[in-house]
Amino acid sequence: MRDFMPEEMSFRRRVIEVVRGVFELFGFGEVDTPALELWEVLSAKCGDEVKEQIYCFQDKAGRWLGLRFDLTVPLARVVASSPTLVLPFKRYCIGKVWRYEEPQSGRFREFVQADADIVGSDKPDADAEVLAVASTCLERLGLNDFVIELSNRKVLEGIMAEAGVSNDRFFEACRILDKLDKVGREGVVREFYSRGFPNGVAERVLELTSVSLDEAEEVLRRHQRALEGVKEVEEIIKLGEWYGFADKVKVDFSLARGLDYYTGPVFEFKVRTYGAGSVAGGGRYDDLIERIGGRALPATGVSLGIERIIEVLSSREGKGSYRYADVFIAAVDESVKGEAVKLASLFRSRDVRVEVDLMGRRLSRQLEYADSKNIPFVVIVGKREVEEGKVRLRDMVKREEVLLSADEALQAILSKLS
Amino acid sequence: MRDFMPEEMSFRRRVIEVVRGVFELFGFGEVDTPALELWEVLSAKCGDEVKEQIYCFQDKAGRWLGLRFDLTVPLARVVASSPTLVLPFKRYCIGKVWRYEEPQSGRFREFVQADADIVGSDKPDADAEVLAVASTCLERLGLNDFVIELSNRKVLEGIMAEAGVSNDRFFEACRILDKLDKVGREGVVREFYSRGFPNGVAERVLELTSVSLDEAEEVLRRHQRALEGVKEVEEIIKLGEWYGFADKVKVDFSLARGLDYYTGPVFEFKVRTYGAGSVAGGGRYDDLIERIGGRALPATGVSLGIERIIEVLSSREGKGSYRYADVFIAAVDESVKGEAVKLASLFRSRDVRVEVDLMGRRLSRQLEYADSKNIPFVVIVGKREVEEGKVRLRDMVKREEVLLSADEALQAILSKLS
Repeated sequence: MRDFMPEEMSFRRRVIEVVRGVFELFGFGEVDTPALELWEVLSAKCGDEVKEQIYCFQDKAGRWLGLRFDLTVPLARVVASSPTLVLPFKRYCIGKVWRYEEPQSGRFREFVQADADIVGSDKPDADAEVLAVASTCLERLGLNDFVIELSNRKVLEGIMAEAGVSNDRFFEACRILDKLDKVGREGVVREFYSRGFPNGVAERVLELTSVSLDEAEEVLRRHQRALEGVKEVEEIIKLGEWYGFADKVKVDFSLARGLDYYTGPVFEFKVRTYGAGSVAGGGRYDDLIERIGGRALPATGVSLGIERIIEVLSSREGKGSYRYADVFIAAVDESVKGEAVKLASLFRSRDVRVEVDLMGRRLSRQLEYADSKNIPFVVIVGKREVEEGKVRLRDMVKREEVLLSADEALQAILSKLS
Repeated sequence: MRDFMPEEMSFRRRVIEVVRGVFELFGFGEVDTPALELWEVLSAKCGDEVKEQIYCFQDKAGRWLGLRFDLTVPLARVVASSPTLVLPFKRYCIGKVWRYEEPQSGRFREFVQADADIVGSDKPDADAEVLAVASTCLERLGLNDFVIELSNRKVLEGIMAEAGVSNDRFFEACRILDKLDKVGREGVVREFYSRGFPNGVAERVLELTSVSLDEAEEVLRRHQRALEGVKEVEEIIKLGEWYGFADKVKVDFSLARGLDYYTGPVFEFKVRTYGAGSVAGGGRYDDLIERIGGRALPATGVSLGIERIIEVLSSREGKGSYRYADVFIAAVDESVKGEAVKLASLFRSRDVRVEVDLMGRRLSRQLEYADSKNIPFVVIVGKREVEEGKVRLRDMVKREEVLLSADEALQAILSKLS
């Protein structure tokens, strides 16, 4: 887990605000839920691997609680307990989640996710919209070189059945396949064998998942739900033409996603130059809400990995430098401190960010401080100048000083800042 | 712990953004720290009562962790481990904290605090600045009827000594006194007795804490640090004249604050009409950073209770209604869905918040949905209109419709929204 200092935090804040803005452009409303959830809610449908990663404990009343490991399960709980929602219910959430796993590049134990989900529509239109939301986020952040890997759990059901995986081991097989990027084909084959799947299943799974969208219909003709899945993929691509993301889509049925709650389309956004995994991912989870105790409501959503997006962006553009304030107002000595403080209030009332000395420092030290904090302007308040109703405005970059009235100084700064 | 739906969340977001804006106006930079801290850090100097309220547990590696109960202790840890900070270091943080206590009006187990702290200055200037920051936040939120109760731990040290409290029971006595608002004078007296303080101590404490600023110097003349404390209070009020908050200050030495880490000025902001406690509070904590393992660095700060501020504001102005989108773009039938989606993208590229149908609904149901979501404009895309290069723009409030080109509709909406 990490601390973020202002230099880094201002960069993170900028990314988060772009994402928030895009979510709202598509009509998503913000929902916030607690960090802690009941253990039975968290563990309802996440799969064993993630279950291992949940920080959990008993509270003083003896209830088992856990820190949320994603934002989807809390959403499902909220929807399950809100029977009167207007549908589709479109919510976004940008917040921290926690997973106890080995830290590595792009993976942390505390990290921020930004999710947009649509509850109540079983149409591919909803899947296409969450893909459009995520695409727009990445584009507005300047990350244009991404690919959307698109798959479908229904197609995978057909593939697994065709390959000889029994129904009750479908989730297990998906979780193994989900590691393909990490462990490669050999690793996947090895795990299928070591878990006791029949001979040849692993190879057959890998062969079948590499079929193209065109071939899939023929190969999976005996699997009704798989054909539905193929159709959904086609529909999403058609909608993607209108939304403008279709040229980013790469159909890839070897994409399974690790969590057990997916039921239909699943997808991941990958940035070409970034090796450490996807920057966004998601899919449809049509029975999670019912499983958590609500009505049967279809749902689909996308989760943006803010940490990875920041990692990519900052490796490309650097993190920049943070400017704590626009102006430092320096008092030449104690006798004019009151004037400096009052001037600071005036400037702040016009939304100029101002610092004053809080250390009883002499002028030269105040200027050094302003310099070290990257503050571009200093207004110097001196005794004689005050008597004349003037201040000195110093441009810290150009190293120039002019004598102005306080109002003129304010106007000059406002115009230079805008 | 609570869930916040978009209607409520948009209100919370507005409050938080005002506070963030003010913090930045004063040159504070944002720092973010993890929700979890090591138990030994959290429990370093909080006092027994709060220690009881920390959510804590052992992680899989056997380390004791806890959810942070405030934002000050994590700041102290960050500073303690950052020896090269430029001083004064001015940081803000707006984030969740957790305390396991009985929920009641204005108190929750998960709540948001917004803190601004100044590290590195032992001058009253820093204390005055955090008071100015909090005052400006409340004023910009429209909460002008507040009082700043101002006290000083050094003065309290003198008062406690003068009243016969031994040095080693000073913190305990402060924590009892801190309950004055909640349990009244009788309650305080009872607790002093039940904890075995000598006869008369409680009454003497209450009598001495009711002295005015003018009397304090005489009454506490034998206590050097108390006289320093009196001087600090006077200095802060003088600075308050310049900052503009002096007329809100009410010196009250019965204000002790509950946490053990305070060492100098302490204060609370109370809103006249709000009975459930202070809306902000804070003070100076000059040895916390050293205690956590850093250099000896003076520090002071204020914490705004976002939950209480929201409670006061929403009781006064109501929470308003949230508008999920500015425009709904309705397709008359499937054949023009592509046009509707493309139009939505165009509008969004101009930062207009747009929803489209995701449910395959017919037009009348789409209009009902837009109405129920409080969306003020609907753009209707029909087959014939598309052929003519037109759309119908419907004002949902006035119930009027006009035929326009897409661009004209966009311009009309932009001008009506601004």
